[in-house]
Amino acid sequence: MTKLIETIREMSDLAQSIRSQGKTIGFIPTMGALHEGHLTLMTQAKNENDVTVASVFVNPLQFGPGEDYESYPRQLDMDFSHAESVGVDYLFHPGVEEMYPTDRQVTLHVGRLASVLEGSKRPGHFDGVVTVVNKLFNIVQPSRAYFGRKDAQQLTIIEAMVNDFNHAIQIVGVDIVREEDGLSKSSRNVYLTIEERQQAVHLYKSLQLARQMIAEGEIKSSVIIDKMTHYLTEQTTGQVDEIAIYHYPALTQADEITDSCFISLAVKFSKARLIDNIMIHKK
Amino acid sequence: MTKLIETIREMSDLAQSIRSQGKTIGFIPTMGALHEGHLTLMTQAKNENDVTVASVFVNPLQFGPGEDYESYPRQLDMDFSHAESVGVDYLFHPGVEEMYPTDRQVTLHVGRLASVLEGSKRPGHFDGVVTVVNKLFNIVQPSRAYFGRKDAQQLTIIEAMVNDFNHAIQIVGVDIVREEDGLSKSSRNVYLTIEERQQAVHLYKSLQLARQMIAEGEIKSSVIIDKMTHYLTEQTTGQVDEIAIYHYPALTQADEITDSCFISLAVKFSKARLIDNIMIHKK
Repeated sequence: MTKLIETIREMSDLAQSIRSQGKTIGFIPTMGALHEGHLTLMTQAKNENDVTVASVFVNPLQFGPGEDYESYPRQLDMDFSHAESVGVDYLFHPGVEEMYPTDRQVTLHVGRLASVLEGSKRPGHFDGVVTVVNKLFNIVQPSRAYFGRKDAQQLTIIEAMVNDFNHAIQIVGVDIVREEDGLSKSSRNVYLTIEERQQAVHLYKSLQLARQMIAEGEIKSSVIIDKMTHYLTEQTTGQVDEIAIYHYPALTQADEITDSCFISLAVKFSKARLIDNIMIHKK
Repeated sequence: MTKLIETIREMSDLAQSIRSQGKTIGFIPTMGALHEGHLTLMTQAKNENDVTVASVFVNPLQFGPGEDYESYPRQLDMDFSHAESVGVDYLFHPGVEEMYPTDRQVTLHVGRLASVLEGSKRPGHFDGVVTVVNKLFNIVQPSRAYFGRKDAQQLTIIEAMVNDFNHAIQIVGVDIVREEDGLSKSSRNVYLTIEERQQAVHLYKSLQLARQMIAEGEIKSSVIIDKMTHYLTEQTTGQVDEIAIYHYPALTQADEITDSCFISLAVKFSKARLIDNIMIHKK
């Protein structure tokens, strides 16, 4: 039985009670619209902790002007059923007034790590992310918190925050969950036409192509990016929005692949912008 | 027996172990140079919690250029003895490299509350204060944290941070500790000449004068401030640096005393700038 909790006070008291009994809490913060990727995080948290808490909160601070805050899917009943199906103990679902009751006096800002990739296109987005995640961490008091590697930049920034703030929390990055044909799971995949859905398999294939090139000795990022761009342009009707190779976890641009890097891409289809990435580990 | 702890890892593990046994932690963050004011906080923490932790850390982030970071008194042996004398269980004394090992990626900024009083004269000071206190809170995981009302603006800002960040910590404000003649205790009192030390009693007397005026019906701040300035100028050789009346805890200027306010003053003597304040509670 999953229990729904809607106030900070109740969640905080509960978390303190659990921790004071020496039990661990695994936490999965989400904005709802749960899909199999989220459920994988929840299942892993369930396996690794005494108590599992997930949150569903559409955080206004991480949406910019003109972004889809109002239209972001809200489907608490379905999310609750999903969470219950994988054995989440508590689903924390606070209202906006509960989380942001007054003008904030102490604000958070992310530096260089937010200046690239998604962060460069969405000013303030990651400030909003760390603001809410810091609050949620203090309320839920998890031993471990689970994030998907799909949002690689978000994961890197959360890890930096935990480091800077000395949260006594282990951040667990969970691999991307894929459809059988390799397309990474996303709430947005339903917006694809039948043809686009068939083409979308080539996003992951282009990343595998890059991995193959690197295995065969290619180290120049520009060569790899050109090849991926060419491949995606040939194989899909989508528009290549960005292909980038960054050192990990520094998030500085990698002109050559000499250490751990991640390769990320974004392709715009008619009604959905899909993202994907892979990590390259080099000694 | 007080135990000295110098690493974040040891302090964090210890705090988790204590909290996981259901015990409470009382915490007193300090910059060392402990005096009777600090010891009062420690004694109260000791009375109200299972375990008492004090920290001594001279935080570089809260000193501006040209301020006295280098010359700030460091006297760990004496601080340790003081802490031991009042029964502090753990004294946390991390090095600067331990607290700030790398460039910080997520920074904290205090808004309007830092724009008045001390904050207006020391840009960035309170950003540094909340940065270190947030870190210490996450490391020490206190149930209650103790701050003197002497630094009324600091107390207000810490309370705002706890509110904004949802720290599960009770902030306890402790009344100013005074010498027998009313002078508020301070590490800086030793810098006064004998004559100045005798005059310094008039700082608190001027605040009592203000309280008396308010009790007798005066509500205009300007009238009270004029009277206090006149009194201090007559009774001391010090230079009145600031007398201000602010609504509490909003920290907006109070032209009339209609609700809870605090009256603060700063007087410059030859080698020391002394501060003091009182709270006025009105229904």
